[in-house]
Amino acid sequence: MTHTANNPVSSNDIAFFADAGIEMMHAETKLDARYNMDMFDKYSGDSQVVLFPKTTKQVSEILAYCNEHRISVVTQGGNSGVAGGAIAHHGEIILSLRDMNKVRELDPVAGVLVADSGCVLEDLDNYVQEHGFIMPVDLGGRKRCMIGGNVSTSAGGLRYLRYGSMHGNVLGLEVVLPDGRILDALFSLKKDASGYDVKQLFIGAEGTLGVVTAVSISLAPKPSSAQIAVLGLNEFTKIHRAFVLARQHLGEIVSAFEFWEKRCNEIVVEYEKYTSPIGPAHEFYVMIETRGSCKKHDAEKMDWFLEKVQAEQIADEVKVFRDQEEMEAVWLFRSQMASAHTKSGCMYVYDFSLPPKHQYDLLLATKKHMESLGLFGAKDSPVKDITLFGHVGDQNLHLQAVAREFGGDVEAALEPWIYQWVGSHGGSVAAEHGLGAHKGKFLQYSKSHVVVDTMKQIKNLLDPRGIMNPGKCVDRA
Amino acid sequence: MTHTANNPVSSNDIAFFADAGIEMMHAETKLDARYNMDMFDKYSGDSQVVLFPKTTKQVSEILAYCNEHRISVVTQGGNSGVAGGAIAHHGEIILSLRDMNKVRELDPVAGVLVADSGCVLEDLDNYVQEHGFIMPVDLGGRKRCMIGGNVSTSAGGLRYLRYGSMHGNVLGLEVVLPDGRILDALFSLKKDASGYDVKQLFIGAEGTLGVVTAVSISLAPKPSSAQIAVLGLNEFTKIHRAFVLARQHLGEIVSAFEFWEKRCNEIVVEYEKYTSPIGPAHEFYVMIETRGSCKKHDAEKMDWFLEKVQAEQIADEVKVFRDQEEMEAVWLFRSQMASAHTKSGCMYVYDFSLPPKHQYDLLLATKKHMESLGLFGAKDSPVKDITLFGHVGDQNLHLQAVAREFGGDVEAALEPWIYQWVGSHGGSVAAEHGLGAHKGKFLQYSKSHVVVDTMKQIKNLLDPRGIMNPGKCVDRA
Repeated sequence: MTHTANNPVSSNDIAFFADAGIEMMHAETKLDARYNMDMFDKYSGDSQVVLFPKTTKQVSEILAYCNEHRISVVTQGGNSGVAGGAIAHHGEIILSLRDMNKVRELDPVAGVLVADSGCVLEDLDNYVQEHGFIMPVDLGGRKRCMIGGNVSTSAGGLRYLRYGSMHGNVLGLEVVLPDGRILDALFSLKKDASGYDVKQLFIGAEGTLGVVTAVSISLAPKPSSAQIAVLGLNEFTKIHRAFVLARQHLGEIVSAFEFWEKRCNEIVVEYEKYTSPIGPAHEFYVMIETRGSCKKHDAEKMDWFLEKVQAEQIADEVKVFRDQEEMEAVWLFRSQMASAHTKSGCMYVYDFSLPPKHQYDLLLATKKHMESLGLFGAKDSPVKDITLFGHVGDQNLHLQAVAREFGGDVEAALEPWIYQWVGSHGGSVAAEHGLGAHKGKFLQYSKSHVVVDTMKQIKNLLDPRGIMNPGKCVDRA
Repeated sequence: MTHTANNPVSSNDIAFFADAGIEMMHAETKLDARYNMDMFDKYSGDSQVVLFPKTTKQVSEILAYCNEHRISVVTQGGNSGVAGGAIAHHGEIILSLRDMNKVRELDPVAGVLVADSGCVLEDLDNYVQEHGFIMPVDLGGRKRCMIGGNVSTSAGGLRYLRYGSMHGNVLGLEVVLPDGRILDALFSLKKDASGYDVKQLFIGAEGTLGVVTAVSISLAPKPSSAQIAVLGLNEFTKIHRAFVLARQHLGEIVSAFEFWEKRCNEIVVEYEKYTSPIGPAHEFYVMIETRGSCKKHDAEKMDWFLEKVQAEQIADEVKVFRDQEEMEAVWLFRSQMASAHTKSGCMYVYDFSLPPKHQYDLLLATKKHMESLGLFGAKDSPVKDITLFGHVGDQNLHLQAVAREFGGDVEAALEPWIYQWVGSHGGSVAAEHGLGAHKGKFLQYSKSHVVVDTMKQIKNLLDPRGIMNPGKCVDRA
């Protein structure tokens, strides 16, 4: 791999950073272990030094120096990624954006926020809510993740269905390029058709093309009313029918459309001790949230939608939640799905996008494949559960295979088979978690070689010495 | 300029295309003059041959041949651009996408359309409406413009406020690269965080990086109700206050928020003979459209909004239009603004994005500047009118300077002064019309040199021989 060609950090380098007045932690004195470990203790690194620049100029000085001396750099925001993308596996310098955490500007008319990359997502959301807005992105890691990391992983999350992607919402970026030049593309304009939109390259690049130091982002008006309906269904295709009806009858107020299947529901009840929002058991569950600007109107729309759902016999059970505490309980139930699986056994988790017509087949095909290898389906099979839940509206599925123990034949049976299956059914091998440390090699299954070659050419163009997060996301040719 | 280095089309080349079975028009037999002229008769070209490929494979054959023989190519969709981007100024081959006009797929659950680039926007809108959707983009040229051109110019248009940008709505592209390789990035997935989003580079590239042959685009649910309010105001800042209130009270149903000033209104009345939607004369006019899924709810929301507007004494006059014919008349009044100016004299038109706080200053500063040069303000000044209208919600302004005749000192007085002014006030020199043939040289005023250099590096990387639309948008270094 190319990254091994780069140089380790020397005492001269440390002296340079100290002289430049850059705050740091290093292994000889004290380096907090959490910078070398991801939040699920899955990926660990061996960085010897963490730098804490306070300004874009300092980031520029650091990268110019590292590029000149061929020292590799891993940028870290909240280090809350789940794909190992922010871990320094090869002794790279960690460049933490922790101390670049100021709001630069909020335009209350245009609804545009400009903020340093190290701002924590939840802090920004709280801040803009005081001005009548919400951030267009929200995710489970909101208390820890930082906006620069959200941009760098092209975070999807819970508001995607309503507000769309980072590619649409990010209006501008300030990026320090690997050679230290500052790419000032921190525009705050919604319409801008003047040349190539170069900032787009850094959205989802997982820190492999430069360091995003500031973000300009379009905000959404803060909704004033919310409600949730949970449906119990007995056929997967009815989920899609419900989605089409929701779009027709709930129209502009639908803000989330989630589903999970029976076994997911059981696992949350069993391992998190939460009460199922509806019962008795159904084959499938759908959770629909609306957010709007008028409680009365939103309630009426929901009633019309549910009448239609019942008239078409789509759901066996329907329950509406309008009380704040009850709604939070439903969201909590939904959001504990991943951790409940972790508690139930040794989880292999996958984050795919798939066209609707192939979504359920993913679960059936995976079960069949694992059964055919003798790894699933019997009472004492190595894999206890294979489950599916996800964001229907975004075509984003999370598939879990829960084994009795890590190791054995399970991972080799799943990979690359599952990536190949997803790629050959029009899916993506990484929907919202990024490629990180592990999935770059599976990219070929869902992206044509011309696309992958073009990515590598761009990597070579912008980071010719390969100092930025080597081995992650897209590496050099 | 680099493009002069490329070769003219020879009879050998014509023979090659004929042998390859590619339909064509050429000057020796008959070449329809409209391929060498833009729709406003402003830009003219001198292409000798227009090719009409029917398949992506044919486009690939054409480009591979042209790249090998260093022959320049201008791609043409509906040729309805207003910036000369699709005109073959230097005898380039025109590659028309006219015959690539099939819908490839519509996913009725996901709401995703995949179509050939040569599909006319209005045809696509009609087609998807049959399935309960609308296109996320609409513009005045809808009867003629093609989806490939919409993507290549990053078209903004009339639905931008509600549905956002092409960068957010386009899910995938099929692009033939200058060397003939087919970049199959025709994904139909909403969430996809797997590597660099290379398709983004072609959105807004105005055909300088390759030929977009197919587009996958996210559709919006078709709204079932619409209404329009027109407000008369006497201060520019009240427009912004009305916008903030609309976001609060009309929330998720606002679909357009347009403004124009007094003189624009007079010019439409005088030169198009349309009746002003409200009267008597106001300093400023605001037009707010809502589109939603329930007529009754939408009407109530509009009433609450207008009560608030009146309580805060924002508007001197308010009128609501809910009748279909009346609403069409208001839109017609608004959409005739550009053509009315053309009829009133010799129009210099500018398409800028500007942050709200500088929007009105643009008009005042331009008037003052032209007055100081003795070109505006007196009874017989060379410039009769300087006017402003635009899309407030998108920060997109159109400024017109109407002269008594073309030529003289007017253009030199306006340019580059006006681009410089816009650039130094955080604006963009091209909001939704693209850079085209003329504005590339002004890009430096609104984009930093690192951004422009990066664009040029990307052009060099993807089109090293500079055969794609040379001299337009971003040219090689």
